[in-house]
Amino acid sequence: MPLNILFAARQERWDTYAEPLRNALQEAGFPDTVLSQDLPPAEVDYIVYAPNSPVQDFTPYTRTKAVLNLWAGVEAITGNETLTQPLARMVDPGMTRSMTEWVTGHTLRHHLGMDQHITDQSGTWNPVTPPLAEERIVTILGMGELGSSVAQSLLALQFRVRGWSRSPREVAGVDMYHADSGLDDALRGADIVILLLPDTPATENTLNAQRLALLRKGAFVINPGRGPLIDDDALIAALDSGQVAHATLDVFRTEPLPAEHPFWAHRQVTVTPHIAAETRELTATRVIAENIRRGEAGEPFLYLVDRARGY
Amino acid sequence: MPLNILFAARQERWDTYAEPLRNALQEAGFPDTVLSQDLPPAEVDYIVYAPNSPVQDFTPYTRTKAVLNLWAGVEAITGNETLTQPLARMVDPGMTRSMTEWVTGHTLRHHLGMDQHITDQSGTWNPVTPPLAEERIVTILGMGELGSSVAQSLLALQFRVRGWSRSPREVAGVDMYHADSGLDDALRGADIVILLLPDTPATENTLNAQRLALLRKGAFVINPGRGPLIDDDALIAALDSGQVAHATLDVFRTEPLPAEHPFWAHRQVTVTPHIAAETRELTATRVIAENIRRGEAGEPFLYLVDRARGY
Repeated sequence: MPLNILFAARQERWDTYAEPLRNALQEAGFPDTVLSQDLPPAEVDYIVYAPNSPVQDFTPYTRTKAVLNLWAGVEAITGNETLTQPLARMVDPGMTRSMTEWVTGHTLRHHLGMDQHITDQSGTWNPVTPPLAEERIVTILGMGELGSSVAQSLLALQFRVRGWSRSPREVAGVDMYHADSGLDDALRGADIVILLLPDTPATENTLNAQRLALLRKGAFVINPGRGPLIDDDALIAALDSGQVAHATLDVFRTEPLPAEHPFWAHRQVTVTPHIAAETRELTATRVIAENIRRGEAGEPFLYLVDRARGY
Repeated sequence: MPLNILFAARQERWDTYAEPLRNALQEAGFPDTVLSQDLPPAEVDYIVYAPNSPVQDFTPYTRTKAVLNLWAGVEAITGNETLTQPLARMVDPGMTRSMTEWVTGHTLRHHLGMDQHITDQSGTWNPVTPPLAEERIVTILGMGELGSSVAQSLLALQFRVRGWSRSPREVAGVDMYHADSGLDDALRGADIVILLLPDTPATENTLNAQRLALLRKGAFVINPGRGPLIDDDALIAALDSGQVAHATLDVFRTEPLPAEHPFWAHRQVTVTPHIAAETRELTATRVIAENIRRGEAGEPFLYLVDRARGY
């Protein structure tokens, strides 16, 4: 009997993902799969899922073996009490590369002081050389798949990299800190801070006024993680005082970021429209097909979400 | 008898280099060296040299064992027929890092389309994701110390890297081309071109109209090498036609770049004031001291210039 796979995401995602997903399923050994946006709930084997899908009550999906999220972020679904099936995050190698490129690029941009040259071409010849990367401390909050990949990239450029994670970890070449007690030490004196934590109740306002004050004066903040990690008002105050020289923000509490939000108009803030890490169809559909293969073979799923931790 | 070392460069270089150079010489085992801006020519053992120094006639320096250049570029001195002493270029590890950071940063900047977000914060939320680095071809012209270091950095980010050098070379992970016959193939279809060739009669106007036309439409040009490598008029025409989307230029035929030069006003050109690779006093003076140690020990000098090739 062929597998029944429900694609529960917006129409534009279906337009993008249907064909690569069929190809990936065929490559994984499931050529006869029924892949549809509309199936009787009691007959669904797997749900490929985006948290903004109309499917919010998982009770009728009685034989569904797993819910396979299209994206890395699962905060919009972990609190859903009707979801008793295993939930897997997306860890897409294409998305990891995308995030690594975006963060490395903006880290170098701030390190090198590029904006001055990009925005002022008035003819002033004023050669000022920045310090070398080896003289800059970069602190990465969140050392999962994405944080670790970013750390490797920055180490290759010889930045001095610190990492912070909730639980103790070892990462080669990185000065690691952990737990609430290690957070202040990870931030103290940092030149550049990169936020790659998940959005959970415990991580809200991680970068607040007290912690922003620990950074080196004139530091840079880069947030490609989640909007609520930053106390927006505290950040604006730190920018206004010069404690933070510039913030580059890709994620916000409300997206799209409303036109009247002060981040848009602030000269020391660069807003980017949630583009740092986009799931790539080709690589992401292979991850989904591999999890379906595992489910059918009775092997453990990849990237299962721990609902108690929230990621 | 102590060594006599003539420091032949502008006063501001003396102010910066005298103390680190004395320290480096002491570390290298020469604590009693006479280091001065003014010595009788016939008594000078080594010349630490910048090509814009007043010393242009080397005939009276009859016992000088080597001329040690403070910078990588030697084009202003290789044609000097009075210079019969060995001439060494500067290969400063700090300068190599500086160049690698600058080129990697501007490559990522163009790859990611950063300028749009840096210059337009009008509140438009338009998420467009760039391709991955692995989908971009970057061609590096000149695969010496600097080009090879840049190649390693871009390979770590998974760019598809091509290299061109005059003589055949192998560089791990890089598609290598060589000789005049390989230059067009190295450039054909490239998304980003990085110029790191020396300035010699043979390299002038390497990037001319015919070669610019070989690049992928909408390509990016990055020149941290030497100004004459580019035919300026051909580049402006290629920018105006859209064949080249943007050029980031750090070096020019005349420096400082005159305020009336069209590069300043062109919206698709970013001028930076020769900052990509600055010699770093701490690391560069160690290279000079090491060459003096080698000269006194009868060992071969590092980084000797081949006067016939011009670099």
